[in-house]
Amino acid sequence: MAIEVWWGSGSPFAWRVLLALELKGIDYDSRLISFGDREHKTPAYLARNPRGKVPVLVDGDIVVYESLAILAYLESTYPERALFGTHPAEVARVWRCVAENENYGWALFRRVIRPLYFGTVDRDRDDLFAALPEVHVELARLEGALAEGPWLAGQEATAAECCWYPVLRGLVRAAGKPEADALELGVLPLEATYPRLAAWMGRVEALPGFARTWPPHWGAPPSP
Amino acid sequence: MAIEVWWGSGSPFAWRVLLALELKGIDYDSRLISFGDREHKTPAYLARNPRGKVPVLVDGDIVVYESLAILAYLESTYPERALFGTHPAEVARVWRCVAENENYGWALFRRVIRPLYFGTVDRDRDDLFAALPEVHVELARLEGALAEGPWLAGQEATAAECCWYPVLRGLVRAAGKPEADALELGVLPLEATYPRLAAWMGRVEALPGFARTWPPHWGAPPSP
Repeated sequence: MAIEVWWGSGSPFAWRVLLALELKGIDYDSRLISFGDREHKTPAYLARNPRGKVPVLVDGDIVVYESLAILAYLESTYPERALFGTHPAEVARVWRCVAENENYGWALFRRVIRPLYFGTVDRDRDDLFAALPEVHVELARLEGALAEGPWLAGQEATAAECCWYPVLRGLVRAAGKPEADALELGVLPLEATYPRLAAWMGRVEALPGFARTWPPHWGAPPSP
Repeated sequence: MAIEVWWGSGSPFAWRVLLALELKGIDYDSRLISFGDREHKTPAYLARNPRGKVPVLVDGDIVVYESLAILAYLESTYPERALFGTHPAEVARVWRCVAENENYGWALFRRVIRPLYFGTVDRDRDDLFAALPEVHVELARLEGALAEGPWLAGQEATAAECCWYPVLRGLVRAAGKPEADALELGVLPLEATYPRLAAWMGRVEALPGFARTWPPHWGAPPSP
């Protein structure tokens, strides 16, 4: 019985899990739900996850929600193609990078991204500009990490890529909206502002199975 | 060479790590720093953790910061006395409980705790009362989990205890401040409001080594 993954288009937390499954080469039944139809709030869905959020992973009798828990569960249960490092120094680096994503990833970047996604820049302008310098601190930190090698934390792509790519892609997408032009976010063109991050995004997009993880409502994925 | 742990009194994130080390029975050099003297912002400290936060774990050549990363590093490197479960269903449960702590633990509870710790109830009253019902949702959820067994997620104490105990203890401490009397938080006495959680706190406090993890500036730890 294949693993089921319940996910929603564009959720950075669901995206993490899809990328991890593709990296590990694990077959899965993709169960894409519609946020618009509130399919994450139906009784059947709430029986899987009482918090009514994506993603949820169902592996036989085991139901896991909270994306970080799903990543750790997959690593523990399907250790082949390790995503959290293969020796202590690498384990420490990958987990630090993942934990930083928990604390300084979407939680921070959303304050720039969401006003642009949802057309609330006027209302949320102060918070957006309060977050922006912190976002650039994190971008510079990631850019610096990529001076050491092609991947954020390991010898190959790891859970750090699974967690950071969706956040970075969200930022690039938001910064490309026409409403962003007047804001001078300092993000685009990424090739000029953070060239190593731009090249890294291309490397992630060239990973096997990447296209299957792309949010369907965003249209075609970038061609590798 | 013993592991060094750099921590600050009362930090729930540092406390997680101390509890994990005690549960695993790993010897460590306790390096308590003073927040008042800003010892977490000295050049020597920032060389260990550029974010200038506690905790930091130093294990020979390996330096790890971000408390979640430290817990995962310890589990990977010192697997004896597993803290994240011993079979897939338990691994899933413990990690879900830890991930929930990341998202609905200190990040939420601090909105009630910190105004009482720092005497800013007047300024932060609206946010405190916005957070309070959500805090009670989480407390009820934890109380429900304890109907299934003595520990939150495993057959014995796990990382779920390491993560949730400091948050719960912070809430109880804040709710016991005289300024809390007029707020009718509905938290104390915990034996009446959430009796299973109250008993669970007692079980955590009776774990070997618990007293060594107690924030020194809080005075004597509860007697088991």
